[in-house]
Amino acid sequence: MNQRIPVVEKILNANDRLAAENRRLLDEHGVFAINLMASPGAGKTSLIEQTVPRLAAELRLAVVDGDIATSLDADRAAAAGAIAVQINTGGDCHLDAVMLQQALAQLDLRAVDLLIVENVGNLVCPASFALGTHLSVLVASVPEGDDKPYKYPGMYRGVEALVINKIDLLPYVPFRMDYFRQGVELLNPGLRTFPLSCRTGEGLEAWLDWLRGETRRRQGEHR
Amino acid sequence: MNQRIPVVEKILNANDRLAAENRRLLDEHGVFAINLMASPGAGKTSLIEQTVPRLAAELRLAVVDGDIATSLDADRAAAAGAIAVQINTGGDCHLDAVMLQQALAQLDLRAVDLLIVENVGNLVCPASFALGTHLSVLVASVPEGDDKPYKYPGMYRGVEALVINKIDLLPYVPFRMDYFRQGVELLNPGLRTFPLSCRTGEGLEAWLDWLRGETRRRQGEHR
Repeated sequence: MNQRIPVVEKILNANDRLAAENRRLLDEHGVFAINLMASPGAGKTSLIEQTVPRLAAELRLAVVDGDIATSLDADRAAAAGAIAVQINTGGDCHLDAVMLQQALAQLDLRAVDLLIVENVGNLVCPASFALGTHLSVLVASVPEGDDKPYKYPGMYRGVEALVINKIDLLPYVPFRMDYFRQGVELLNPGLRTFPLSCRTGEGLEAWLDWLRGETRRRQGEHR
Repeated sequence: MNQRIPVVEKILNANDRLAAENRRLLDEHGVFAINLMASPGAGKTSLIEQTVPRLAAELRLAVVDGDIATSLDADRAAAAGAIAVQINTGGDCHLDAVMLQQALAQLDLRAVDLLIVENVGNLVCPASFALGTHLSVLVASVPEGDDKPYKYPGMYRGVEALVINKIDLLPYVPFRMDYFRQGVELLNPGLRTFPLSCRTGEGLEAWLDWLRGETRRRQGEHR
Protein backbone atom coordinates (compact mmCIF):
# COMPACT_ATOMS: atom_id res chain seq x y z
CA MET A 1 0.00 0.00 0.00
CA ASN A 2 1.35 3.32 -0.97
CA GLN A 3 1.75 5.78 1.78
CA ARG A 4 0.42 9.23 1.06
CA ILE A 5 3.18 11.67 1.33
CA PRO A 6 2.15 15.16 2.31
CA VAL A 7 3.45 17.77 -0.06
CA VAL A 8 3.98 21.21 1.32
CA GLU A 9 3.99 23.83 -1.36
CA LYS A 10 6.73 26.36 -1.31
CA ILE A 11 5.28 29.28 0.54
CA LEU A 12 6.47 32.64 -0.59
CA ASN A 13 7.94 34.72 2.15
CA ALA A 14 6.28 38.00 3.03
CA ASN A 15 8.58 40.03 0.82
CA ASP A 16 8.05 37.78 -2.19
CA ARG A 17 4.28 37.96 -1.77
CA LEU A 18 4.36 41.73 -1.73
CA ALA A 19 6.73 41.75 -4.67
CA ALA A 20 4.20 39.68 -6.62
CA GLU A 21 1.49 42.22 -5.70
CA ASN A 22 3.70 45.05 -6.89
CA ARG A 23 4.27 43.20 -10.15
CA ARG A 24 0.54 42.74 -10.68
CA LEU A 25 -0.07 46.42 -10.05
CA LEU A 26 2.66 47.43 -12.50
CA ASP A 27 1.35 45.04 -15.17
CA GLU A 28 -2.22 46.22 -14.75
CA HIS A 29 -1.07 49.72 -15.57
CA GLY A 30 1.30 48.73 -18.36
CA VAL A 31 4.32 50.00 -16.46
CA PHE A 32 7.67 48.41 -17.24
CA ALA A 33 9.91 48.59 -14.15
CA ILE A 34 13.60 47.97 -13.60
CA ASN A 35 15.54 47.61 -10.36
CA LEU A 36 18.84 49.49 -10.70
CA MET A 37 21.54 48.27 -8.33
CA ALA A 38 25.21 49.15 -7.84
CA SER A 39 28.02 49.96 -5.42
CA PRO A 40 27.91 53.44 -3.94
CA GLY A 41 29.16 55.83 -6.58
CA ALA A 42 29.07 53.52 -9.60
CA GLY A 43 26.73 55.94 -11.30
CA LYS A 44 23.10 54.88 -10.89
CA THR A 45 21.89 58.45 -10.49
CA SER A 46 24.12 59.70 -13.30
CA LEU A 47 22.70 57.01 -15.58
CA ILE A 48 19.19 58.13 -14.66
CA GLU A 49 20.15 61.75 -15.34
CA GLN A 50 21.41 60.80 -18.79
CA THR A 51 18.51 58.46 -19.56
CA VAL A 52 15.50 60.55 -18.58
CA PRO A 53 15.86 63.52 -20.92
CA ARG A 54 16.86 61.29 -23.86
CA LEU A 55 13.70 59.17 -23.55
CA ALA A 56 11.33 61.91 -22.42
CA ALA A 57 9.91 62.51 -25.90
CA GLU A 58 8.89 58.86 -26.29
CA LEU A 59 8.22 57.46 -22.84
CA ARG A 60 6.71 58.74 -19.62
CA LEU A 61 9.30 58.11 -16.95
CA ALA A 62 9.15 57.84 -13.20
CA VAL A 63 11.96 57.22 -10.75
CA VAL A 64 11.78 55.80 -7.25
CA ASP A 65 14.95 56.58 -5.32
CA GLY A 66 16.02 54.54 -2.34
CA ASP A 67 18.51 56.13 -0.01
CA ILE A 68 19.57 55.77 3.58
CA ALA A 69 19.39 59.50 4.09
CA THR A 70 18.84 62.68 2.07
CA SER A 71 16.84 63.19 -1.11
CA LEU A 72 19.87 64.11 -3.21
CA ASP A 73 19.22 61.39 -5.78
CA ALA A 74 15.51 62.05 -6.13
CA ASP A 75 16.29 65.74 -6.54
CA ARG A 76 18.64 64.92 -9.40
CA ALA A 77 16.08 62.60 -11.04
CA ALA A 78 13.40 65.28 -10.77
CA ALA A 79 15.76 67.90 -12.16
CA ALA A 80 16.36 65.61 -15.14
CA GLY A 81 12.61 65.64 -15.82
CA ALA A 82 11.30 62.44 -14.22
CA ILE A 83 8.43 62.10 -11.81
CA ALA A 84 10.41 61.22 -8.68
CA VAL A 85 9.56 59.61 -5.37
CA GLN A 86 12.07 59.35 -2.56
CA ILE A 87 12.24 56.41 -0.17
CA ASN A 88 14.35 57.01 2.90
CA THR A 89 15.18 53.58 4.24
CA GLY A 90 16.08 55.02 7.64
CA GLY A 91 19.38 53.18 7.76
CA ASP A 92 18.35 50.01 5.95
CA CYS A 93 20.86 48.73 3.44
CA HIS A 94 18.40 47.77 0.70
CA LEU A 95 14.93 48.39 -0.63
CA ASP A 96 12.25 45.80 -0.11
CA ALA A 97 8.82 45.15 -1.59
CA VAL A 98 7.00 47.03 1.19
CA MET A 99 8.98 50.18 0.54
CA LEU A 100 8.28 49.96 -3.19
CA GLN A 101 4.60 49.33 -2.51
CA GLN A 102 4.46 52.56 -0.50
CA ALA A 103 6.27 54.43 -3.24
CA LEU A 104 3.96 53.08 -5.95
CA ALA A 105 1.01 54.44 -3.99
CA GLN A 106 2.48 57.91 -4.47
CA LEU A 107 2.54 57.61 -8.25
CA ASP A 108 -0.19 57.87 -10.86
CA LEU A 109 0.81 54.65 -12.60
CA ARG A 110 -1.55 55.32 -15.51
CA ALA A 111 0.79 58.14 -16.47
CA VAL A 112 3.96 56.03 -16.42
CA ASP A 113 5.53 53.84 -19.12
CA LEU A 114 8.92 53.17 -17.59
CA LEU A 115 9.70 53.09 -13.88
CA ILE A 116 13.31 53.06 -12.75
CA VAL A 117 13.80 52.02 -9.13
CA GLU A 118 17.18 53.15 -7.86
CA ASN A 119 18.17 50.83 -5.04
CA VAL A 120 20.51 51.66 -2.14
CA GLY A 121 24.19 51.67 -3.13
CA ASN A 122 25.24 48.21 -2.02
CA LEU A 123 26.57 45.17 -3.92
CA VAL A 124 25.31 42.64 -1.40
CA CYS A 125 21.96 43.05 0.34
CA PRO A 126 19.70 44.38 -2.45
CA ALA A 127 20.28 41.16 -4.41
CA SER A 128 18.28 39.23 -1.80
CA PHE A 129 15.08 41.26 -1.91
CA ALA A 130 12.67 41.01 -4.83
CA LEU A 131 10.75 44.23 -5.42
CA GLY A 132 8.32 43.17 -8.11
CA THR A 133 10.17 44.95 -10.91
CA HIS A 134 10.49 43.16 -14.26
CA LEU A 135 14.24 43.24 -14.70
CA SER A 136 17.26 43.88 -12.53
CA VAL A 137 20.11 45.94 -13.90
CA LEU A 138 23.53 46.23 -12.30
CA VAL A 139 25.69 49.30 -12.84
CA ALA A 140 29.37 48.43 -12.48
CA SER A 141 32.04 51.07 -12.94
CA VAL A 142 35.57 50.85 -14.24
CA PRO A 143 37.38 52.42 -11.24
CA GLU A 144 35.84 49.81 -8.90
CA GLY A 145 38.20 47.26 -10.41
CA ASP A 146 37.97 44.21 -12.61
CA ASP A 147 37.63 41.68 -9.76
CA LYS A 148 34.12 42.64 -8.69
CA PRO A 149 32.21 39.81 -10.42
CA TYR A 150 34.45 37.31 -8.64
CA LYS A 151 33.93 38.98 -5.27
CA TYR A 152 30.20 39.73 -5.45
CA PRO A 153 28.87 36.70 -7.33
CA GLY A 154 25.35 36.87 -5.89
CA MET A 155 24.77 40.29 -7.38
CA TYR A 156 26.29 39.50 -10.78
CA ARG A 157 24.36 36.22 -11.00
CA GLY A 158 20.97 37.76 -10.33
CA VAL A 159 20.68 40.52 -12.92
CA GLU A 160 19.32 40.63 -16.47
CA ALA A 161 21.55 43.42 -17.76
CA LEU A 162 24.87 45.01 -16.84
CA VAL A 163 25.99 48.57 -17.45
CA ILE A 164 29.76 49.10 -17.28
CA ASN A 165 29.98 52.80 -16.52
CA LYS A 166 32.92 55.25 -16.55
CA ILE A 167 34.68 53.69 -19.54
CA ASP A 168 36.23 57.14 -20.07
CA LEU A 169 38.48 56.29 -17.09
CA LEU A 170 39.92 53.14 -18.72
CA PRO A 171 43.19 54.89 -19.68
CA TYR A 172 43.79 55.97 -16.08
CA VAL A 173 43.07 52.86 -14.02
CA PRO A 174 44.23 49.25 -14.08
CA PHE A 175 41.14 47.47 -15.39
CA ARG A 176 41.42 44.36 -17.55
CA MET A 177 38.14 44.26 -19.46
CA ASP A 178 38.79 40.64 -20.53
CA TYR A 179 39.22 39.48 -16.95
CA PHE A 180 36.11 41.36 -15.86
CA ARG A 181 34.00 39.97 -18.70
CA GLN A 182 35.29 36.46 -18.08
CA GLY A 183 33.99 36.62 -14.51
CA VAL A 184 30.65 37.95 -15.67
CA GLU A 185 30.37 35.20 -18.30
CA LEU A 186 31.06 32.50 -15.71
CA LEU A 187 28.34 33.75 -13.40
CA ASN A 188 25.79 34.93 -15.89
CA PRO A 189 26.41 33.52 -19.37
CA GLY A 190 25.28 35.71 -22.22
CA LEU A 191 24.39 38.61 -19.93
CA ARG A 192 23.49 41.69 -21.93
CA THR A 193 26.18 44.28 -21.28
CA PHE A 194 26.40 48.00 -22.01
CA PRO A 195 29.84 49.60 -21.67
CA LEU A 196 29.29 53.35 -21.54
CA SER A 197 30.26 56.65 -20.01
CA CYS A 198 27.62 58.85 -18.41
CA ARG A 199 30.20 61.63 -18.51
CA THR A 200 31.05 61.62 -22.23
CA GLY A 201 27.85 59.98 -23.49
CA GLU A 202 29.79 57.22 -25.27
CA GLY A 203 27.81 53.99 -25.47
CA LEU A 204 24.55 55.47 -24.20
CA GLU A 205 22.64 54.79 -27.40
CA ALA A 206 22.78 50.99 -27.08
CA TRP A 207 21.48 51.23 -23.52
CA LEU A 208 18.66 53.57 -24.53
CA ASP A 209 17.70 51.35 -27.47
CA TRP A 210 17.47 48.35 -25.20
CA LEU A 211 15.39 50.24 -22.66
CA ARG A 212 13.03 51.52 -25.35
CA GLY A 213 12.67 48.06 -26.83
CA GLU A 214 12.05 46.32 -23.51
CA THR A 215 9.49 48.91 -22.44
CA ARG A 216 7.54 48.65 -25.69
CA ARG A 217 7.73 44.86 -25.72
CA ARG A 218 6.48 44.49 -22.13
CA GLN A 219 3.75 47.00 -22.64
CA GLY A 220 2.65 45.09 -25.75
CA GLU A 221 2.40 41.89 -23.71
CA HIS A 222 0.08 43.45 -21.16
CA ARG A 223 -2.21 45.38 -23.42
CA MET B 1 9.07 57.55 51.64
CA ASN B 2 11.23 57.26 48.63
CA GLN B 3 10.43 54.42 46.33
CA ARG B 4 13.38 52.36 45.23
CA ILE B 5 13.61 52.43 41.50
CA PRO B 6 15.15 49.38 39.92
CA VAL B 7 17.95 50.27 37.56
CA VAL B 8 18.62 47.88 34.74
CA GLU B 9 22.11 48.22 33.39
CA LYS B 10 22.58 48.35 29.67
CA ILE B 11 23.24 44.80 28.65
CA LEU B 12 25.63 44.41 25.79
CA ASN B 13 24.29 42.43 22.89
CA ALA B 14 25.98 39.19 21.92
CA ASN B 15 28.10 40.82 19.25
CA ASP B 16 29.29 43.61 21.55
CA ARG B 17 30.24 41.09 24.24
CA LEU B 18 32.33 39.11 21.80
CA ALA B 19 33.86 42.30 20.46
CA ALA B 20 34.92 43.17 24.02
CA GLU B 21 36.51 39.74 24.32
CA ASN B 22 38.35 40.23 21.05
CA ARG B 23 39.62 43.58 22.32
CA ARG B 24 40.90 42.02 25.53
CA LEU B 25 42.71 39.33 23.57
CA LEU B 26 44.31 41.89 21.28
CA ASP B 27 45.37 44.08 24.20
CA GLU B 28 46.84 41.14 26.11
CA HIS B 29 49.10 40.46 23.17
CA GLY B 30 49.95 44.08 22.45
CA VAL B 31 48.26 43.97 19.04
CA PHE B 32 46.92 47.21 17.62
CA ALA B 33 44.00 46.47 15.30
CA ILE B 34 42.08 48.55 12.79
CA ASN B 35 38.81 47.84 11.01
CA LEU B 36 39.13 48.94 7.38
CA MET B 37 35.81 49.66 5.70
CA ALA B 38 34.80 50.98 2.27
CA SER B 39 32.58 50.63 -0.77
CA PRO B 40 33.47 47.80 -3.10
CA GLY B 41 36.47 48.90 -5.12
CA ALA B 42 37.47 51.98 -3.11
CA GLY B 43 40.89 50.43 -2.58
CA LYS B 44 41.07 48.65 0.78
CA THR B 45 43.18 45.83 -0.61
CA SER B 46 45.34 48.21 -2.63
CA LEU B 47 45.97 50.24 0.52
CA ILE B 48 47.01 47.07 2.35
CA GLU B 49 49.30 46.14 -0.54
CA GLN B 50 50.99 49.53 -0.34
CA THR B 51 51.13 49.59 3.45
CA VAL B 52 52.49 46.14 4.27
CA PRO B 53 55.88 46.25 2.51
CA ARG B 54 56.52 49.83 3.65
CA LEU B 55 56.05 48.95 7.33
CA ALA B 56 57.48 45.43 7.23
CA ALA B 57 60.92 46.47 8.51
CA GLU B 58 59.43 48.08 11.64
CA LEU B 59 56.20 46.27 12.45
CA ARG B 60 54.95 42.71 12.27
CA LEU B 61 51.75 42.84 10.25
CA ALA B 62 48.79 40.55 9.91
CA VAL B 63 45.71 40.95 7.75
CA VAL B 64 42.28 39.40 8.21
CA ASP B 65 40.28 39.59 4.99
CA GLY B 66 36.54 39.41 4.97
CA ASP B 67 34.90 38.51 1.69
CA ILE B 68 31.65 37.07 0.53
CA ALA B 69 33.44 34.65 -1.77
CA THR B 70 36.97 33.93 -2.99
CA SER B 71 40.30 34.52 -1.26
CA LEU B 72 41.48 37.09 -3.81
CA ASP B 73 42.11 39.77 -1.18
CA ALA B 74 43.90 37.52 1.29
CA ASP B 75 46.08 36.27 -1.56
CA ARG B 76 47.06 39.86 -2.36
CA ALA B 77 47.76 40.66 1.31
CA ALA B 78 49.91 37.54 1.62
CA ALA B 79 51.75 38.35 -1.60
CA ALA B 80 52.53 41.79 -0.13
CA GLY B 81 54.20 40.05 2.82
CA ALA B 82 51.56 40.00 5.55
CA ILE B 83 50.38 37.01 7.54
CA ALA B 84 46.91 36.65 6.08
CA VAL B 85 43.72 34.93 7.20
CA GLN B 86 40.65 34.75 4.98
CA ILE B 87 37.10 34.89 6.31
CA ASN B 88 34.46 33.86 3.82
CA THR B 89 31.23 35.30 5.12
CA GLY B 90 29.18 32.93 2.99
CA GLY B 91 27.03 35.71 1.62
CA ASP B 92 26.91 37.93 4.69
CA CYS B 93 27.30 41.61 3.99
CA HIS B 94 29.60 42.45 6.91
CA LEU B 95 32.05 40.96 9.38
CA ASP B 96 30.98 40.46 12.97
CA ALA B 97 32.81 39.79 16.21
CA VAL B 98 32.32 35.99 15.97
CA MET B 99 34.00 35.88 12.59
CA LEU B 100 36.92 37.94 13.88
CA GLN B 101 37.19 35.73 16.95
CA GLN B 102 37.54 32.69 14.70
CA ALA B 103 40.14 34.44 12.59
CA LEU B 104 42.15 35.55 15.64
CA ALA B 105 42.34 31.90 16.72
CA GLN B 106 44.24 31.22 13.48
CA LEU B 107 46.93 33.78 14.27
CA ASP B 108 49.91 33.71 16.62
CA LEU B 109 49.08 37.08 18.17
CA ARG B 110 52.41 37.20 20.02
CA ALA B 111 54.02 37.65 16.63
CA VAL B 112 51.80 40.56 15.52
CA ASP B 113 52.13 44.31 16.15
CA LEU B 114 49.53 45.63 13.75
CA LEU B 115 46.43 43.80 12.58
CA ILE B 116 44.43 45.16 9.68
CA VAL B 117 40.93 43.74 9.35
CA GLU B 118 39.57 44.26 5.87
CA ASN B 119 35.80 44.29 6.10
CA VAL B 120 33.35 43.38 3.33
CA GLY B 121 32.99 46.10 0.69
CA ASN B 122 29.83 47.84 1.88
CA LEU B 123 29.12 51.39 3.09
CA VAL B 124 26.16 50.42 5.22
CA CYS B 125 26.10 47.20 7.22
CA PRO B 126 29.68 46.95 8.58
CA ALA B 127 29.14 50.22 10.47
CA SER B 128 26.66 48.45 12.78
CA PHE B 129 28.89 45.61 13.97
CA ALA B 130 31.72 46.21 16.42
CA LEU B 131 34.59 43.78 15.98
CA GLY B 132 36.79 44.65 18.93
CA THR B 133 39.36 46.51 16.86
CA HIS B 134 40.79 49.75 18.29
CA LEU B 135 40.02 52.11 15.47
CA SER B 136 37.80 52.15 12.40
CA VAL B 137 39.15 53.56 9.17
CA LEU B 138 37.05 54.36 6.13
CA VAL B 139 38.55 54.31 2.65
CA ALA B 140 36.66 56.66 0.34
CA SER B 141 37.68 57.08 -3.28
CA VAL B 142 37.48 60.03 -5.61
CA PRO B 143 35.53 58.35 -8.47
CA GLU B 144 32.74 57.38 -6.02
CA GLY B 145 31.72 61.00 -5.98
CA ASP B 146 31.69 63.87 -3.53
CA ASP B 147 28.19 63.22 -2.16
CA LYS B 148 29.00 60.03 -0.27
CA PRO B 149 29.29 61.53 3.26
CA TYR B 150 25.82 63.01 2.83
CA LYS B 151 24.36 59.73 1.60
CA TYR B 152 26.07 57.30 4.02
CA PRO B 153 26.18 59.33 7.24
CA GLY B 154 26.27 56.33 9.57
CA MET B 155 29.53 55.11 8.10
CA TYR B 156 31.19 58.53 8.01
CA ARG B 157 30.08 59.29 11.56
CA GLY B 158 31.49 56.13 13.08
CA VAL B 159 35.13 56.13 11.98
CA GLU B 160 38.31 57.52 13.53
CA ALA B 161 40.21 58.14 10.30
CA LEU B 162 39.40 58.62 6.64
CA VAL B 163 41.55 57.77 3.64
CA ILE B 164 40.58 59.54 0.42
CA ASN B 165 42.04 57.22 -2.21
CA LYS B 166 42.56 57.66 -5.97
CA ILE B 167 43.39 61.36 -5.84
CA ASP B 168 45.31 60.75 -9.09
CA LEU B 169 41.87 60.62 -10.76
CA LEU B 170 40.87 64.12 -9.61
CA PRO B 171 41.60 65.66 -13.03
CA TYR B 172 39.29 63.17 -14.75
CA VAL B 173 36.16 63.12 -12.60
CA PRO B 174 33.78 65.73 -11.22
CA PHE B 175 34.69 65.72 -7.54
CA ARG B 176 34.48 68.87 -5.44
CA MET B 177 36.90 68.24 -2.58
CA ASP B 178 35.44 71.19 -0.60
CA TYR B 179 31.92 69.81 -0.80
CA PHE B 180 33.11 66.35 0.20
CA ARG B 181 35.13 67.64 3.17
CA GLN B 182 32.26 69.86 4.27
CA GLY B 183 30.02 66.80 4.56
CA VAL B 184 32.69 64.92 6.48
CA GLU B 185 33.20 67.84 8.85
CA LEU B 186 29.48 68.06 9.59
CA LEU B 187 29.27 64.39 10.49
CA ASN B 188 32.61 63.86 12.11
CA PRO B 189 34.27 67.15 13.10
CA GLY B 190 38.04 67.14 13.04
CA LEU B 191 38.24 63.66 11.52
CA ARG B 192 41.81 62.78 10.60
CA THR B 193 41.95 62.54 6.82
CA PHE B 194 44.58 61.17 4.44
CA PRO B 195 44.18 62.07 0.77
CA LEU B 196 46.39 59.69 -1.19
CA SER B 197 46.82 57.55 -4.25
CA CYS B 198 47.68 53.88 -3.90
CA ARG B 199 48.53 53.93 -7.56
CA THR B 200 51.09 56.76 -7.60
CA GLY B 201 52.12 56.59 -3.94
CA GLU B 202 51.30 60.27 -3.40
CA GLY B 203 50.22 60.98 0.18
CA LEU B 204 51.08 57.53 1.52
CA GLU B 205 53.73 58.80 3.95
CA ALA B 206 51.28 60.70 6.16
CA TRP B 207 49.09 57.59 6.41
CA LEU B 208 52.06 55.37 7.25
CA ASP B 209 53.33 57.84 9.86
CA TRP B 210 49.96 57.87 11.54
CA LEU B 211 49.73 54.08 11.53
CA ARG B 212 53.25 53.73 12.96
CA GLY B 213 52.50 56.30 15.67
CA GLU B 214 49.16 54.78 16.65
CA THR B 215 50.61 51.27 16.81
CA ARG B 216 53.54 52.32 19.00
CA ARG B 217 51.34 54.44 21.23
CA ARG B 218 48.76 51.69 21.82
CA GLN B 219 51.44 49.10 22.41
CA GLY B 220 53.04 51.44 24.98
CA GLU B 221 49.73 51.73 26.82
CA HIS B 222 49.37 47.98 27.18
CA ARG B 223 52.92 47.02 28.17
